Amino acid sequence: MKIVLNGPIGHQGTEILRRQFGAEADIVAVDHREVDEQAIRAFAEAEILVTVDFDDGLPPTPKLRLVHLPAAGLDAIDLAAVPAGCRVCNAFEHEIGISEYVMAAMLHHVVDLAGRSERFKAGSWAESPRLAAPFRPELAGQTIGSIGYGHIGRAVARRAKAFGMRVMALARTSRDVDPPPDWLGEPQDLPALLQASDFVLVACPLNDMTRGMIGEAQLAQMKPDAVLINIARGPIVDEDALYEALAKRRIGGAVLDTWYRYPEPGNSGLRPSRHPFHELDNVVMTPHCSGWTEGLMERRFAVIADNIERLRAGRPLINQVHPIPEAKRNRR
Amino acid sequence: MKIVLNGPIGHQGTEILRRQFGAEADIVAVDHREVDEQAIRAFAEAEILVTVDFDDGLPPTPKLRLVHLPAAGLDAIDLAAVPAGCRVCNAFEHEIGISEYVMAAMLHHVVDLAGRSERFKAGSWAESPRLAAPFRPELAGQTIGSIGYGHIGRAVARRAKAFGMRVMALARTSRDVDPPPDWLGEPQDLPALLQASDFVLVACPLNDMTRGMIGEAQLAQMKPDAVLINIARGPIVDEDALYEALAKRRIGGAVLDTWYRYPEPGNSGLRPSRHPFHELDNVVMTPHCSGWTEGLMERRFAVIADNIERLRAGRPLINQVHPIPEAKRNRR
Repeated sequence: MKIVLNGPIGHQGTEILRRQFGAEADIVAVDHREVDEQAIRAFAEAEILVTVDFDDGLPPTPKLRLVHLPAAGLDAIDLAAVPAGCRVCNAFEHEIGISEYVMAAMLHHVVDLAGRSERFKAGSWAESPRLAAPFRPELAGQTIGSIGYGHIGRAVARRAKAFGMRVMALARTSRDVDPPPDWLGEPQDLPALLQASDFVLVACPLNDMTRGMIGEAQLAQMKPDAVLINIARGPIVDEDALYEALAKRRIGGAVLDTWYRYPEPGNSGLRPSRHPFHELDNVVMTPHCSGWTEGLMERRFAVIADNIERLRAGRPLINQVHPIPEAKRNRR
Repeated sequence: MKIVLNGPIGHQGTEILRRQFGAEADIVAVDHREVDEQAIRAFAEAEILVTVDFDDGLPPTPKLRLVHLPAAGLDAIDLAAVPAGCRVCNAFEHEIGISEYVMAAMLHHVVDLAGRSERFKAGSWAESPRLAAPFRPELAGQTIGSIGYGHIGRAVARRAKAFGMRVMALARTSRDVDPPPDWLGEPQDLPALLQASDFVLVACPLNDMTRGMIGEAQLAQMKPDAVLINIARGPIVDEDALYEALAKRRIGGAVLDTWYRYPEPGNSGLRPSRHPFHELDNVVMTPHCSGWTEGLMERRFAVIADNIERLRAGRPLINQVHPIPEAKRNRR
């Protein structure tokens, strides 16, 4: 069984799969951005390819039976380029890390622990109740509106509910809504969610339906002090409209982990947008690392190893996204 | 009915109680640190005194039937100075704000949102998975050990459990443990809690039993990377031993909201300890504001108003701490 791991996850993934399969599997880690003879041979023999990117720029993969993403987002997979008969699965497991990040983002806005510490360390008691400091807001009682209610939206909801927050969610279907949100809408109910939320969480896939779905009109529907949190994909939110809304303080702020531009080898100084988000004090920004946690790869490669076992045994795969399994199609 | 409000809560408390009682109550706000003729007359007539401090330095209060704290801590109340027949009640309601602060403190240590944002704004993608950044720890699976399992410990536990954390708790009695911790010990089990916790939360009252209970020996029992969080009272943790453990990096860090010294009028530049905690980069510190939130006073004065009604109707009071009610004594 020939397994090829493509990209920066190669090293750790190889170790985990070797531990699982031992000598039964021939595992090679390659980087498709530096294709050499060895990589071409590996792709030519590969039955299983673990990758976040797949398009017709890759070397030929005539024996491929399974493309497995070690991630959730399908936006860098060109399904038309996948060989006939080859299946595609994705992996989640990032919802623990990302939901912790989202809760940290909301608590940052109400508690501002780092800022308070900095000011107290500088010597000021001005935020002490003894000096009649103003009260801070509570997270309890505030509303989070999640656009998308998949693995991430539900993991955030579970935590937000423990804080006494109200949870609103948009989902394409009403299946599998555990925990149940306090309000569940369909995509056309987006305005109601935007108008009622103190925190708007973008937690849906990037596709033709969602690209630019948060634009000038949608940002204008948000409360003037509401905070936008994007841990999904940058282009779901219109780049120009978001910068404008933040620079002109039409919304309360943003916590952005996902971007419009990413560094490639040779341009690691690239800014993540054509606009200077980094100059805005109402923006918290991180380099697409919200789910990058110590437990992530172990959990993801456990899913991948399980699916490789299933493929060998002829059993149904978990998280199969192409072709869409019969059972899942019927639920839509 | 004569009600006196003592200290900085006077203004807001007066408003809330006036809304509740209207003309039925004669409400005066005073500051015992600036006792004048008017204040002495108010104390002399007071039937109900709302205050965090009570000792024999106050003007005489011969008609007092109820001392009500607008707070939880009894450490500034000298019960021996309370007139015979006068009852003492306290108020909580800070557990929402404080538990949000404690979760923010733990998330600060695993996510470091503010630090990451600062570094990314400066132009560095070094924390991006695309540049093979190291993984961050997850809160999920970590252990929080709560010393004390009253209103605050339980509010923190409810939130921590939603994050998949393991909760250990020390309590004097096993009554009223909702949510049940994963491990429940008695005071003599402190070493087991200290050895197993990634975060040690100090959440017990300050009294003769707890003063200095976390000293050099106890800090040495903590894991070398564990973080101490004190939102209770500074002197529960030995000042010298804590500074030493942090300066010599024997523990992972501390998040400190409660202190050894507080400003009084005229010395608002006072540092909160005789040691320079503010110079340590493994310390996050705030000026005793963890529970100081917008909903706090409304909830506390709702409890106070309810107890005033109960006193007038001759019904049992809520949160009575002196004399200890018969029912509560029997449960000990």
